[in-house]
Amino acid sequence: MGISTKQTGIPFTKVKVTDKFWAPKMETNRLKTIPANEKQCRETGRLDCFKPEYKGERHYFWDSDVAKWIEAGCYSLAVKYDKKLEKTLEDVISDIIAMQQEDGYMNNYFIYVKPEMRWKNLRDCHELYCAGHLIEAAVAHFYATGRRNFLDAMCRYADLICKTFGPGKGQIPGYPGHQEIELALVKLYHATGEKRYLDMACYFIDQRGQQPHYYDKEAIERGDDPKKFWAKTYEYMQAHQPVREQKDAVGHSVRALYMYSGMADCAKETGDKELEAACKRLWESVCERQMYITGGIGPSLSNEGFVKDYMLPVENISSESCASVAAIFFCQRMLYLTGESKYADAMERIMYNSGLSGVSLDGEKFFYSNQLYTYDPEADKKGEKQPASGKHYQWDGAALHRQGWYGCSCCPPNIARFIASLPGYIYGTSENTLWVNLFVGSETEFEVNGIKVKAQTKTKYPWNGKVTITFKPEKECEFTVKLRMPQWCESSSLKVKSKFKDNTVVGDEDGYLTVTRKWRKGDHIIYTMDMPVQRVYATTKVRELEGRVAIQRGPVVYCLETVDNCTNNLEKLALPRKYNLRAVMNKTLLGGVVTIIGKVEVNNDGAEEEGLYQNRPPNVGIRQFKAVPYYAWDNRAPGSVIVWIREK
Amino acid sequence: MGISTKQTGIPFTKVKVTDKFWAPKMETNRLKTIPANEKQCRETGRLDCFKPEYKGERHYFWDSDVAKWIEAGCYSLAVKYDKKLEKTLEDVISDIIAMQQEDGYMNNYFIYVKPEMRWKNLRDCHELYCAGHLIEAAVAHFYATGRRNFLDAMCRYADLICKTFGPGKGQIPGYPGHQEIELALVKLYHATGEKRYLDMACYFIDQRGQQPHYYDKEAIERGDDPKKFWAKTYEYMQAHQPVREQKDAVGHSVRALYMYSGMADCAKETGDKELEAACKRLWESVCERQMYITGGIGPSLSNEGFVKDYMLPVENISSESCASVAAIFFCQRMLYLTGESKYADAMERIMYNSGLSGVSLDGEKFFYSNQLYTYDPEADKKGEKQPASGKHYQWDGAALHRQGWYGCSCCPPNIARFIASLPGYIYGTSENTLWVNLFVGSETEFEVNGIKVKAQTKTKYPWNGKVTITFKPEKECEFTVKLRMPQWCESSSLKVKSKFKDNTVVGDEDGYLTVTRKWRKGDHIIYTMDMPVQRVYATTKVRELEGRVAIQRGPVVYCLETVDNCTNNLEKLALPRKYNLRAVMNKTLLGGVVTIIGKVEVNNDGAEEEGLYQNRPPNVGIRQFKAVPYYAWDNRAPGSVIVWIREK
Repeated sequence: MGISTKQTGIPFTKVKVTDKFWAPKMETNRLKTIPANEKQCRETGRLDCFKPEYKGERHYFWDSDVAKWIEAGCYSLAVKYDKKLEKTLEDVISDIIAMQQEDGYMNNYFIYVKPEMRWKNLRDCHELYCAGHLIEAAVAHFYATGRRNFLDAMCRYADLICKTFGPGKGQIPGYPGHQEIELALVKLYHATGEKRYLDMACYFIDQRGQQPHYYDKEAIERGDDPKKFWAKTYEYMQAHQPVREQKDAVGHSVRALYMYSGMADCAKETGDKELEAACKRLWESVCERQMYITGGIGPSLSNEGFVKDYMLPVENISSESCASVAAIFFCQRMLYLTGESKYADAMERIMYNSGLSGVSLDGEKFFYSNQLYTYDPEADKKGEKQPASGKHYQWDGAALHRQGWYGCSCCPPNIARFIASLPGYIYGTSENTLWVNLFVGSETEFEVNGIKVKAQTKTKYPWNGKVTITFKPEKECEFTVKLRMPQWCESSSLKVKSKFKDNTVVGDEDGYLTVTRKWRKGDHIIYTMDMPVQRVYATTKVRELEGRVAIQRGPVVYCLETVDNCTNNLEKLALPRKYNLRAVMNKTLLGGVVTIIGKVEVNNDGAEEEGLYQNRPPNVGIRQFKAVPYYAWDNRAPGSVIVWIREK
Repeated sequence: MGISTKQTGIPFTKVKVTDKFWAPKMETNRLKTIPANEKQCRETGRLDCFKPEYKGERHYFWDSDVAKWIEAGCYSLAVKYDKKLEKTLEDVISDIIAMQQEDGYMNNYFIYVKPEMRWKNLRDCHELYCAGHLIEAAVAHFYATGRRNFLDAMCRYADLICKTFGPGKGQIPGYPGHQEIELALVKLYHATGEKRYLDMACYFIDQRGQQPHYYDKEAIERGDDPKKFWAKTYEYMQAHQPVREQKDAVGHSVRALYMYSGMADCAKETGDKELEAACKRLWESVCERQMYITGGIGPSLSNEGFVKDYMLPVENISSESCASVAAIFFCQRMLYLTGESKYADAMERIMYNSGLSGVSLDGEKFFYSNQLYTYDPEADKKGEKQPASGKHYQWDGAALHRQGWYGCSCCPPNIARFIASLPGYIYGTSENTLWVNLFVGSETEFEVNGIKVKAQTKTKYPWNGKVTITFKPEKECEFTVKLRMPQWCESSSLKVKSKFKDNTVVGDEDGYLTVTRKWRKGDHIIYTMDMPVQRVYATTKVRELEGRVAIQRGPVVYCLETVDNCTNNLEKLALPRKYNLRAVMNKTLLGGVVTIIGKVEVNNDGAEEEGLYQNRPPNVGIRQFKAVPYYAWDNRAPGSVIVWIREK
């Protein structure tokens, strides 16, 4: 078996984003989000904890938070050089490298606090997870700066891991309790060419869930009763059965999606069709049966993860920001592996909605969970009481509004690294082919049979479906342009403009329009996707969403907020099917967004309240409503939000 | 201050229920429910644990389960003598009495397992709660059999409690962590005339929540940190502030309602208007802002209790059967205290709905929680998975279908004692007045100025609103009959039939029709309450119920079940307002019930399923639906249930 791939991504370093949607977000990410992460990491001790003299609290997953911030910083540096940021990053990287033990080991907690527990509790203690994030950071640092110091250190650590884990005598036949290192080791393999890192990733993946169960053995060796596992089931970390046998996405969603990404990496690198089939099954489970319309995944707060097919409640949900980022990773890998547009469709759904809702427009506040419905108690103090205990109702504020940081703060740096690396998701190549996976105003360059071709995309996407791509080959050359036909798009038109009458062959394949011709400098494609306001309905298998409608336009899912709609109780509103919905660009609102307006019915609109129950229906008023992009909610006056509105 | 009361109940021993609704339920209770409780108590060790030689598990609240079963048994005995039941009861009562310590103390757990912990943890350990239930059982035994042995034993225990607790030197200034003894001591006062028991009840009530907080002191004495209280707040047991200052119903609902009942008892016995005002406030909080349409209370599973005003979710709720029973107690006391019909309205709401749904029609299975919506996974195995951990989704079966018993099995014997004592809720008297609080076919006798009057009620209530009450006074005499005008009833008619043309004065007062005349043998009232099918709406303050409608006819709330309506996903159904609803008696269904039928819209009725999200609304079919009384749900093929249906 060899490499199996349909498409190779054009890396973010070769793509310059120039549009009015993503470019400002990337700039906010660089100027606000990455510094905000740094500040929080510094204030909480996360940056100092690598130093032996540091006296404060330490935590066994802190390394990962810092690593993700470094990774984001390096991506950002590569896009736009920033001397101050580089200095900060290099200082922290030096401290991390200095922490490395003689044998290569690195983890601030297990070096300074519990050295005797090294590798003793893979199930719970995130050592390999942190190692994975440090490796990803080192690879990003290497690509961004060309410097090998961090990469070399992480190779030494990876070598220790390769020596420590495996089926051999004296090796530990274990695997991480929180997946992440698998995909990181494949990145390290790409950066170094050392196949042992790929082999180690594949070992971790295939060893997972084998019997006798490693976590049982490990717990007994620690003196713990494996039956008293706090999460109750190894489904929590997808270790309940060998990964190739897994059919349904279960358990903690971030763990799951990092693992699926690693599986897809291994399937690609080894051409393993059985593993690829498992990836496809699991992707369908996640994206076709368990994904929110916003691209969020994992409804349950109790496991921060999956519950069951078509179970998509909207309130008090997890839908963790990290899970969205991890799902983007998985979708991208599946897209490259298969060349099928449905993977890019899901990726786009996440990117323009739950992937972006995790950070405020000012770049400094974050959602850990991304609710699809909230009822804000702050705005309705009357009668407000906290529940006596437990989290049956999550009215702790955390679920309702973005925060600067969290105790477990995995999400803020994860969002930062996603946005910083956005340019890497737009284009791909294969033989004589340019793939346009996302529609983002940008410039890039690729090669066709040794001929360099510059491509420039101009578009007001996601607010407008018109995309113009202009090519500037060094000299005329034939190649195919594959343009994704988004799942949301029901009609589109294509024009190829050229001064020359070369024959153009248009076809379609796996959800992409294919446009093949001999291209010359200045030839351009005008691809226009009609972008009407759409009412979206969930299948009736989603019982929570019966009788409800969501509003979508292009890839952007909309929501209604209190601030635009005069009531905290957004359940009062019902959208009659008979009224039209209208898209209106508002350049001054929320950084410039298309809003959707129309008429809505409001229960008990201004009427006197009666008793708790009555025999008369509430009176109904008709009002104008305004919907804004879901990703931009909770950036103005606090209030409630609703995505799935009652329909009449 | 003296006794303050508007009405005195006619006790259950003086009322014979003869109708086709309650009489068969009381017989099922006697023949099935009480024996089922006995069997479960016996099999779990609850009956044997009073004996010193018993070697099995014991629990500090088991005494209460047995006591409630005894109480139910005694009520039942009083209504219909049953030799076998009497023998069983006497044997267990003997064992209980034999357990009594020299100083009067009684509790199987603290006698045999942890004697050193007696009275050391009032907050958590239910000693006074168990004492209360044993007292109630002993009083019931005394009334039912005339025997004083159990009563005397409980007086000795109550005397010990009076000696132990109080403000005096060497006394414990504490009060129960689970209220119950307060109302029991008032019963003991009534049975014995010993005012010290009333005083003790009043002490417990007024000492509650005083500063410095007794539970803090007690915890410190035990060596515990009061701040580490598992329930986090003394609101849980309504001890967060003195009861007279409490404005909102908070915390564990059974604790709350037992306490409010005890408060109403003390207010009545002492004429304390401040305490009465507190009772009224708390009743309004419970019944006018936090009560389900079924009469259930306490939505939250995390505290088995209250959350906040107008917070009435329908799924994964607590709405504990015990809380319904306790709320019946409180409503009855408020009715007697004030003479206002709203208290009886709420009592009736509970009795015909959540108070009865707790037990299966065959009398042998019980709900702990009474859901208003379920989606039964058993009936939809495809894609079914249990959540990884926690109780975010309560799909453990317990919430979905009745069970024979529970680990914490407070509810089954509580339902049994309620049904056995039902005759005691129908009538009340005051000077020259008979109050008809409930409409139940029955016979009773009361006195007017020394003249005995027999009254016979004939009715097919709750299926028909016609009630005929015939009087047979020993000799003609003038009195007032007060007929409740139920809150659900919008029009009614009244006829007085007599061979004699005595003047009849009809008026109304506090929600009762008053009918005053000179009554002679055979005179009768025909009171006809129009009973159309009603669509009921919740106030828009209940955000969960926007756009939803419930069906009610008379006091009976209806539900739709899968078994009658062809789908597990009852959210697929929507009730268009334009279609009529029709009541149809079905004598063979569920023991004979009026069903409601009509037309309903069904989303995606028989259509091919599409993907998770789509731009087309589901196709809609029109079908006939059938609704059955809520209390009778889950007595046929397992499936889902819905009370609040989407309305169109």
